[in-house]
Amino acid sequence: MTAQAMFDKHRDRLERAVRACETREFHSAFDESPSPRVYGESAAADGKAAFEALLGQAFPLATPGSDGEVATERSPYGFDLGVTYPRVTDPAALLEAAAAGMKQWRDAGPQARVGVALEILDRLHARIFELANAVQHTSGQAFVMAFQAGGAHALDRALEAIAYAHVEMTRVPASAVWEKPGPKPGSEPLRMEKTYTVVPRGVALVIGCNTFPTWNSWPGLFASLVTGNPVVVKPHPGAVLPLAITVQVCQEVLAEAGFDPHLVTLAAEEPTDRLAATLAVHPSVKLIDFTGGNAFGDWLEDNARQATVFTEKAGVNTVVIDSTDSFKAMCQNLAFSFALYTGQMCTAPQNVYLPADGITTEDGTKSVAEVAEGIGNALGRMLGDDARAVELLGAVVNDDVRDRVDSVDTRGDVLVPSRVVAHPAYADATVRTPAIVGLDAADATVYEEECFGPVAYLISTPGTASSIELFRDTVQRRGAMTAAVYSTSDEVIAAMRDAALDAGVALSENLHGAVFVNQSAAYSDFHGTGANPAANASYTDGAYVASRFRFVQSRRHL
Amino acid sequence: MTAQAMFDKHRDRLERAVRACETREFHSAFDESPSPRVYGESAAADGKAAFEALLGQAFPLATPGSDGEVATERSPYGFDLGVTYPRVTDPAALLEAAAAGMKQWRDAGPQARVGVALEILDRLHARIFELANAVQHTSGQAFVMAFQAGGAHALDRALEAIAYAHVEMTRVPASAVWEKPGPKPGSEPLRMEKTYTVVPRGVALVIGCNTFPTWNSWPGLFASLVTGNPVVVKPHPGAVLPLAITVQVCQEVLAEAGFDPHLVTLAAEEPTDRLAATLAVHPSVKLIDFTGGNAFGDWLEDNARQATVFTEKAGVNTVVIDSTDSFKAMCQNLAFSFALYTGQMCTAPQNVYLPADGITTEDGTKSVAEVAEGIGNALGRMLGDDARAVELLGAVVNDDVRDRVDSVDTRGDVLVPSRVVAHPAYADATVRTPAIVGLDAADATVYEEECFGPVAYLISTPGTASSIELFRDTVQRRGAMTAAVYSTSDEVIAAMRDAALDAGVALSENLHGAVFVNQSAAYSDFHGTGANPAANASYTDGAYVASRFRFVQSRRHL
Repeated sequence: MTAQAMFDKHRDRLERAVRACETREFHSAFDESPSPRVYGESAAADGKAAFEALLGQAFPLATPGSDGEVATERSPYGFDLGVTYPRVTDPAALLEAAAAGMKQWRDAGPQARVGVALEILDRLHARIFELANAVQHTSGQAFVMAFQAGGAHALDRALEAIAYAHVEMTRVPASAVWEKPGPKPGSEPLRMEKTYTVVPRGVALVIGCNTFPTWNSWPGLFASLVTGNPVVVKPHPGAVLPLAITVQVCQEVLAEAGFDPHLVTLAAEEPTDRLAATLAVHPSVKLIDFTGGNAFGDWLEDNARQATVFTEKAGVNTVVIDSTDSFKAMCQNLAFSFALYTGQMCTAPQNVYLPADGITTEDGTKSVAEVAEGIGNALGRMLGDDARAVELLGAVVNDDVRDRVDSVDTRGDVLVPSRVVAHPAYADATVRTPAIVGLDAADATVYEEECFGPVAYLISTPGTASSIELFRDTVQRRGAMTAAVYSTSDEVIAAMRDAALDAGVALSENLHGAVFVNQSAAYSDFHGTGANPAANASYTDGAYVASRFRFVQSRRHL
Repeated sequence: MTAQAMFDKHRDRLERAVRACETREFHSAFDESPSPRVYGESAAADGKAAFEALLGQAFPLATPGSDGEVATERSPYGFDLGVTYPRVTDPAALLEAAAAGMKQWRDAGPQARVGVALEILDRLHARIFELANAVQHTSGQAFVMAFQAGGAHALDRALEAIAYAHVEMTRVPASAVWEKPGPKPGSEPLRMEKTYTVVPRGVALVIGCNTFPTWNSWPGLFASLVTGNPVVVKPHPGAVLPLAITVQVCQEVLAEAGFDPHLVTLAAEEPTDRLAATLAVHPSVKLIDFTGGNAFGDWLEDNARQATVFTEKAGVNTVVIDSTDSFKAMCQNLAFSFALYTGQMCTAPQNVYLPADGITTEDGTKSVAEVAEGIGNALGRMLGDDARAVELLGAVVNDDVRDRVDSVDTRGDVLVPSRVVAHPAYADATVRTPAIVGLDAADATVYEEECFGPVAYLISTPGTASSIELFRDTVQRRGAMTAAVYSTSDEVIAAMRDAALDAGVALSENLHGAVFVNQSAAYSDFHGTGANPAANASYTDGAYVASRFRFVQSRRHL
């Protein structure tokens, strides 16, 4: 199939995505339900079998500049994946090979590149169950979440990035006639033909994370690719497989459309290789997308000076509780946000500010202890049964997270303890329920640090005005991916909105149903803002795509 | 007048500019002809009188954080302006005052901000003759050029930047309803109301240059202002007045619309104060627009890490001559480009590569000496008469430029000497005609450096293929704002287009009429590309505006 045929095949999907980004209305191009009614009776079993067939094998992918193999993945559910990948030992050779096809890719033009990318998404979608298993057993997400966040929603975020890049590249026509009237009536006009070409910046580097290997990598990958840049994908050593499948599909479609398959490559490593740092400062790398911790994110921003760097790092996600008319629903909603994937989302709430005197509810004032109890009860209902609990919690992604929650009593007053959950299917899985810790406003040294994992702080403050000030100040200095407020007062909501604008963070107000502060919907919700220290970019706005390419023009008399 | 009334008043002008940016067709909102038929019989005299009334006076503008006054301007036509401006001595106080009105400005929303900016343009337009005098007597541009480039075209570039920013801010609606269907047919949908707010990055700093104080400063100034950022304007000490008038008009309109006038401020200094460097690294400065030399531009990119930095620096603008069927017209066109404003444009051509064996023309082969002679003759026709010459050349902006052209014989073989021109009206003006110097391909140490001013190199190469390779390589390493080619061969044109895409520079092909390589038309031609070392940004593309603000959202159940 030609790239143009790919574009024509998926044109409708693209146009619907473009429209959704404009209206911000609900849209999804990839069904989030793993039901057999949607995907067919055998899809789940086939996907699982495909995943299992990869275990213990050499992944069928060749990477230029590699020598030998690495096998670095262990499922948080307690077994080694044993998949081997080429180990990159000569980064310069890899980057040279990556750049080899760039000119042909540039000259193919925006529509061809977008067509190829949309076909890649379609084929990734066809492997969604296999991908979901790969995401589950690298990130530790429960299967349904891995299917949704790691599959359908990741595809929607990828499509969103492609849609934004498509709009950006086609805001200027490929050519135009410019006719300037002569200085006097009847005098000859000046007529020029002008050509505008999208040119790439250079090689793009995508640095994946352990917890959301697809959702967090695909937007940058596809935004860079469709704008003409070759992409080197450097996965987290703990979550290679989902991106290896991604690269495999990219190469398959690129080759089929007549392009150099090494326009997308997988750069696997031993954790000690520090490959990302080496690649990131190479002169030919002009774009970097990174998701991960602040230390390396800040290092990249400081050191990869030859590149435009897009980072999503960490912050302290905040909830301000002032009052509610739905106490139980509020507790339920918050408990779900703490429990979902064991709090291992960059968007999971951590700091909950509330008045030391308690909050107003439909049942009168509830003390801090009663709020903790309400959330604890909600957690108990959700997570009391081990078999059901693991479907929400998934597994703990690494020992650092486990150690953090297991030593939670060193952080403050444990109001709701964490519980060890036995996984009914995976005896060696590490599973924990969230802990709720009581602090007060003076404990800034504790709550101003991100405590990644299932730990939330109930922080007593002198009152809501003080809570809002703490929120504004802490997020301005330490960053946040999300914020939420519960209040029945219009004044408090207005003050919180103002503080959220000042702090540059998205705000969720009085969530009590099936929408959670840690979830964002593609095409409608921005993920990150670029306006506070937690991230310098957003999925997806114009700034996320516009600097990934340049317009270069030529002109001539007509 | 309210900001909304200002928006309504200028809505048509905005919409026409937006459309022109999309079609890239000819457009102008501000007439470039200084004719009395367009601007009225008394406009020229009134503008001159207004300019003259400012000379020797304290400019009526207060700047927070200032103490005492500076008077740093001398006309290249040979007299001191004697205008005094507040000298900034407390940059932190200035930045604090600049930021004071930011929140109100943010909350006013995109339409109000764009309305204010459009009204500012309208009032600057009403003072266009006064501005043209100010530009003439700071930059040294001849009056008509100062009127056009410093007035009408600068207004068009400003409007273009506003149009781009307006589109970018309104790509996302102010609010939207998001309705996700329930999981089963007939089940209750999830309904959310979402609000999207444009939030500024922080204080913006605009660092002006001596040669194009308005044309090069206004795009960044207005792009930052309409996206919600206060703007501190730091003019070049040699060209303060055009930006002082700009700031005065900005403050007048801001105050009239009910905003803090210090949202735009003038930061004047003694040249030794190094005020730009101090302001540039202050934590509250988040955006910087700079036009000027590579040394300080590179320093800003390296050191102003807290800010997004847009730079237009210098490069080696290149012409490749292969062949022509209009030898005289080609020589005429090139001569005009060398002579216009004494080669003191960042877009003026410097390096002309041509085969050592000569070029093919409609009159047979012309040797390098004959090409030099052809250009020399054209220069002679244009510049032979002093009174006419100064209308094209203007005056030499500073002693560095004068010294460079006066010592041109140290650079190579002078093929066309520079001539001292006596200005008929200004006895103390420094005026020179361009020099053409012969080099060959081995003289890279000479021609790889920008020689700002009226010096062009005719560089003999082994042939056109070699010329194109030199062009590609030199521009990739040293940058360029413009490039041109003359050839009757489709293959050569194709090869040159390809090289221009690789080098990331705009290409003009076979210009022989009234379009010149150093001129770019707002709405249609990009100025700079951001794709080579001469500039990291372009007037104006999406990347130039998109990162000047962020979207911050809030959401709630419906």
